[in-house]
Amino acid sequence: MKTNYRRIALGVEYDGSAFCGWQAQAEKRSIQSTLELALAKVANEPVTVICAGRTDAGVHAFEQVVHFDTTADREPYSWVMGGNTHLPDDVRILWAKPAIGDFHARYSAIARFYRYIILNRPVKSALTPTQTTWCYNSLDADKMHRAAQSLIGHHDFSSFRAQGCQSKSPFRQVHFVEVTREGDRVIMDIAANAFLHHMVRNIAGTLIAIGAGKQPVDWTRELLSVKKRALAGITAPPHGLYLGGVFYPAGYQLANHPIFAKLPADAQRHQD
Amino acid sequence: MKTNYRRIALGVEYDGSAFCGWQAQAEKRSIQSTLELALAKVANEPVTVICAGRTDAGVHAFEQVVHFDTTADREPYSWVMGGNTHLPDDVRILWAKPAIGDFHARYSAIARFYRYIILNRPVKSALTPTQTTWCYNSLDADKMHRAAQSLIGHHDFSSFRAQGCQSKSPFRQVHFVEVTREGDRVIMDIAANAFLHHMVRNIAGTLIAIGAGKQPVDWTRELLSVKKRALAGITAPPHGLYLGGVFYPAGYQLANHPIFAKLPADAQRHQD
Repeated sequence: MKTNYRRIALGVEYDGSAFCGWQAQAEKRSIQSTLELALAKVANEPVTVICAGRTDAGVHAFEQVVHFDTTADREPYSWVMGGNTHLPDDVRILWAKPAIGDFHARYSAIARFYRYIILNRPVKSALTPTQTTWCYNSLDADKMHRAAQSLIGHHDFSSFRAQGCQSKSPFRQVHFVEVTREGDRVIMDIAANAFLHHMVRNIAGTLIAIGAGKQPVDWTRELLSVKKRALAGITAPPHGLYLGGVFYPAGYQLANHPIFAKLPADAQRHQD
Repeated sequence: MKTNYRRIALGVEYDGSAFCGWQAQAEKRSIQSTLELALAKVANEPVTVICAGRTDAGVHAFEQVVHFDTTADREPYSWVMGGNTHLPDDVRILWAKPAIGDFHARYSAIARFYRYIILNRPVKSALTPTQTTWCYNSLDADKMHRAAQSLIGHHDFSSFRAQGCQSKSPFRQVHFVEVTREGDRVIMDIAANAFLHHMVRNIAGTLIAIGAGKQPVDWTRELLSVKKRALAGITAPPHGLYLGGVFYPAGYQLANHPIFAKLPADAQRHQD
């Protein structure tokens, strides 16, 4: 007996400011439920979506990747156009594709790329108050970049892991991390096979302390070795964080963000 | 007899999305009244502000310049910090300086710089729905740039002037205009001694028609010569427009936006 459903992959952009986060929670406005509701209207049946990386309240996505199974037979553009018709302005479906083979938005992903944006000037932003993190202390982006390089590789990231993190292992493989300055913005781009809970924001908080001169450049290396969350920097606010893209093996024929050209050739999927 | 007041200059950033525009209007939320109310609390007396360029509803500013006269004696940082304390999140005072000599935010200005940002992709933006103009037709930015070059110089801009425009003269001096593509964004930067009402948005609407291949590259030149608003492109939406900066003579000792390095050495103030 063959069950007649198809799996669809979607790219999704969202402004997380007015959401409780990705994951559905009773009585709260989550990206997951918002998306499921819109897709159910197009499918004319209930839809459950699985994402590549669950984002916290206030965290945004340039390109989250999700999949769902449905018996509805629709053209890709119908999922995009129809879905967007039923979505609020702060969530947009960027593309839809029939998934190939055993594609799974979360388990097929080889790497995730996050961007953290800091507005570094004396005055808060009128234009992006919920889309950047404001830091009035002058930051040395070069120093932050140098400090960040110690994080590259396969490490125990216990010092950068939220207390409530449910991952079985504290090990992750960071592929690259780059801190640059563009005018009054300091931008951190980081890619890893996967991230622990709050890992990007804890790294950002640690690098901010280094950039502001409150901690030395080798603090990141030291924190990796002590493996104690309590010793690292504060968790930087969610507003500056964006899920930038998700990298899948070529066989799934999904367009990958150009930044993944920097991934090592032997990058492997994360196995928890 | 000497009246004891001082003139203060301010740089102001705002998100125009939730405002009726710069100018105070009864029962409406204007940037002018919002700013005046906040400054009055710091001054402990009523304040009237004059701006360099009145922006329409929905138009933003990276750096509007304003001045006001007051008998209150405050340090520059008190105007910034105190003002920002009393302002809503979508308006920020960036800096304050005692004005030098006969400085006037509007009449002393030699040039204004506006930026128009178009999100050029099939799907609307979830992240900047009120801060970019969405255009799904693929735009040829090079063509738009070439078409825009005809606008440089001293011209009668009647074809690009709003019907209700109250300026005595339709002549303005455009110093430079540049259209570039950055990923899925097309950005137009334009500087002139001053602008007619809706002039930047009418130019943007015209260039969008050219970029989408609906009109030839020499349409801008043609429109300049016919001097008829009805023949030009539609007025592009306000959401993509930003007042980028205002240029003053060096004697006033205000920091000028680096883009003004492109101004011709003999740029003159506008006399209407």
